[in-house]
Amino acid sequence: MDILIKNVRIITGDSVLMDAGTGNIGITGDSISYIGSEDKQAARVINGKGMIAMPGLQNAHTHTSMVLMRNYITDKPLEKWLEEGIFPIEAKLNKKHIKNGSLLALTEMIKSGTTSFLDMYYEVDTTAEAVLKAGIRANISLGLLTSHDKENNLENSKTEWKNFHNTYNGAGGGLLRTSLEVHSVYLYDEKGLMDSADFAAETGTMIHCHLSETRSEVENSIAKYGVSPIREFLKCGLLDVPTTAAHTIWIDDEEMDIILEKGVVPVHCASSNMFLGSGFAPVPKMLKKGIPVAIGTDGAASNNNLDMIKEMAFTALIHKGNNLDPTLVNSTETVSMATANGARAIGFKDTGMLKEGYKADLILIDSDKAHNTPLLNPLNALIYSTKGSDVDTVIVNGKILMENRELKTLDEEKIKYNARQSAVELI
Amino acid sequence: MDILIKNVRIITGDSVLMDAGTGNIGITGDSISYIGSEDKQAARVINGKGMIAMPGLQNAHTHTSMVLMRNYITDKPLEKWLEEGIFPIEAKLNKKHIKNGSLLALTEMIKSGTTSFLDMYYEVDTTAEAVLKAGIRANISLGLLTSHDKENNLENSKTEWKNFHNTYNGAGGGLLRTSLEVHSVYLYDEKGLMDSADFAAETGTMIHCHLSETRSEVENSIAKYGVSPIREFLKCGLLDVPTTAAHTIWIDDEEMDIILEKGVVPVHCASSNMFLGSGFAPVPKMLKKGIPVAIGTDGAASNNNLDMIKEMAFTALIHKGNNLDPTLVNSTETVSMATANGARAIGFKDTGMLKEGYKADLILIDSDKAHNTPLLNPLNALIYSTKGSDVDTVIVNGKILMENRELKTLDEEKIKYNARQSAVELI
Repeated sequence: MDILIKNVRIITGDSVLMDAGTGNIGITGDSISYIGSEDKQAARVINGKGMIAMPGLQNAHTHTSMVLMRNYITDKPLEKWLEEGIFPIEAKLNKKHIKNGSLLALTEMIKSGTTSFLDMYYEVDTTAEAVLKAGIRANISLGLLTSHDKENNLENSKTEWKNFHNTYNGAGGGLLRTSLEVHSVYLYDEKGLMDSADFAAETGTMIHCHLSETRSEVENSIAKYGVSPIREFLKCGLLDVPTTAAHTIWIDDEEMDIILEKGVVPVHCASSNMFLGSGFAPVPKMLKKGIPVAIGTDGAASNNNLDMIKEMAFTALIHKGNNLDPTLVNSTETVSMATANGARAIGFKDTGMLKEGYKADLILIDSDKAHNTPLLNPLNALIYSTKGSDVDTVIVNGKILMENRELKTLDEEKIKYNARQSAVELI
Repeated sequence: MDILIKNVRIITGDSVLMDAGTGNIGITGDSISYIGSEDKQAARVINGKGMIAMPGLQNAHTHTSMVLMRNYITDKPLEKWLEEGIFPIEAKLNKKHIKNGSLLALTEMIKSGTTSFLDMYYEVDTTAEAVLKAGIRANISLGLLTSHDKENNLENSKTEWKNFHNTYNGAGGGLLRTSLEVHSVYLYDEKGLMDSADFAAETGTMIHCHLSETRSEVENSIAKYGVSPIREFLKCGLLDVPTTAAHTIWIDDEEMDIILEKGVVPVHCASSNMFLGSGFAPVPKMLKKGIPVAIGTDGAASNNNLDMIKEMAFTALIHKGNNLDPTLVNSTETVSMATANGARAIGFKDTGMLKEGYKADLILIDSDKAHNTPLLNPLNALIYSTKGSDVDTVIVNGKILMENRELKTLDEEKIKYNARQSAVELI
């Protein structure tokens, strides 16, 4: 056994045994090899007293390098936010910016307990290299050409995807996976959607998309295709492979049944959906139907953090307020969304729970701070009163990425400096 | 000049000049004596580089010692939460518990940047002593007897209030004020409400109350008095003195006009109102009418934090989501709510803004953390990506209560220990 975490409060993330009390967790190689009350020999012992151990948080939808635009434009209508705060900056982005932005995003994510994320943005090779450097787990999505691309050779974009996939899928001892981005119904025509569906089926890859984020997206889809985004995806065969769909706010009951039947994993982005005035996704109803909803931060430009602990609090609270029902989206459901469901959304089968045989992706949270005192219920405290800054230790694939809040694989000060330099160039 | 804070980014909290850029702030005695770009001589110089200076946050509605019950019962209907999580514990509360709970609450508040609060709970003398020990600013409310009290001598309760008022109003060099609690329409009969109104007028004191928190409170008020809680307060003369009213969720347009005309300050408690399934207060509409809405955490048992920075993020986001409008409750408005409006709600005239002549109640926030990088807009960053744990320094009445996150007037470890002991006795 390489690492033994002793006397720690254990939240397993497994809804069968969510709050497992205090015990010891053993790690051998990249996996969890023991959970229980016995003392074990290990090369390294970590004192877990006063800590909560839980599965690393799973950020199931983000655009990492958008951290470079955080807080630049806020409180504006979507069009103005895009036209002033996003598009002009994205037009200038180069590989160096993406490198600096990705490393900053990974720094923020590790420091707030995220061990795995699903990403969709530009210069995917650069982000993949940042992920390997950091030692975090990720699935990075790349799409075929859209109807908005100037380049219009579909075969070229397939080759580009395959090259990316062959280089990075499984890299870093299994830390990295690749997936097919199908951005949304509005960046494609129907032939493009069908081409992507065929390509996903042919390559056996998972799809990462946005679906029904705004009311106007649904209205435009009906005007363009005659049906809603989800029904158009269904029609084109895009739901016949594993699909992770961000947002799913403007959906009806029948669409929820399609999501359930097809095994689509919706990703709830509470902060971003409020920040952009998109609305509240029907999370309580989806959970009630048994849909494994995950949680994402979305890009930092519409959040403006990548903090999954903050996102859990928002997720647990807003639906209670919106439905006038304090029993909705409880602590157990929220933890499952941010861990087990998230792992499924990101496309990993053996992460998202503390379980023998699962990958050793876990975090230790200092639960003895004043704002969590008295600690009457660790599970409730995790959702309602813990802060991202309480994350003390982060382990991914058995490797310690942060200890006592100090990063082990990344140079935080240098990363912040470089990100500031990039922002000066971009804005 | 006693203290000069140099080269700091200044958010004044004054909506005329909210984001004042980088400069120096001088403190002489208990007051701000200089804000500008000049270098000044001072006994003590604080390097403000990389920090945001802003008015201390004003928690305009809380029940401090409820920290002892935080996270105990969550995700339950209001009745169950009260019957299982609150009432049995409150029945056991003694002075020692209130002391330990108050000190823990003050610790959490100072550590997340709150410099002033409006409180309503039991054993007010004990909380007042804790406030004086901590050196924080507060207004503590005590009510006359309610229709639920076993003791039924009104004159005794008036004498008790006067003794409390005479002992503590103005104590600690003006840190403490006292006010009259009129809990709600449902804890009084009409005579009791009128007695309180007369007493407030006679003593010239401010009233602190709950109004229209739940739909059933309004329905019951109409059944009992024939009118809504606000109209009943109006009828009884309770709005003829300065009144601070927590929640005001279930109010109509005409009631907003009454609030505006009577100068009532409503206190928005976003987290608590969601946690208990009470709903979303019409904050955008109230702000549009020019009502100076403040922000409160409510008690920690329904939050489950006392973190005004988290509360600002919730306040800015939920109304955008609820109204499908990202322009509502912008950064400037949110800061004003948590500072200038809050000071008015709590009953102090010269706090809540960084302004020469105002009391030196201010905080320094470390704005160079990864999650605030790049710092493209300090004001937006404060609302959308700052954490309570970023508060570095807290100054109240010219005295440093926290520096480099270390408390100067309170023994944090001892306070946490004692609070845990009290929780063991209570639960």
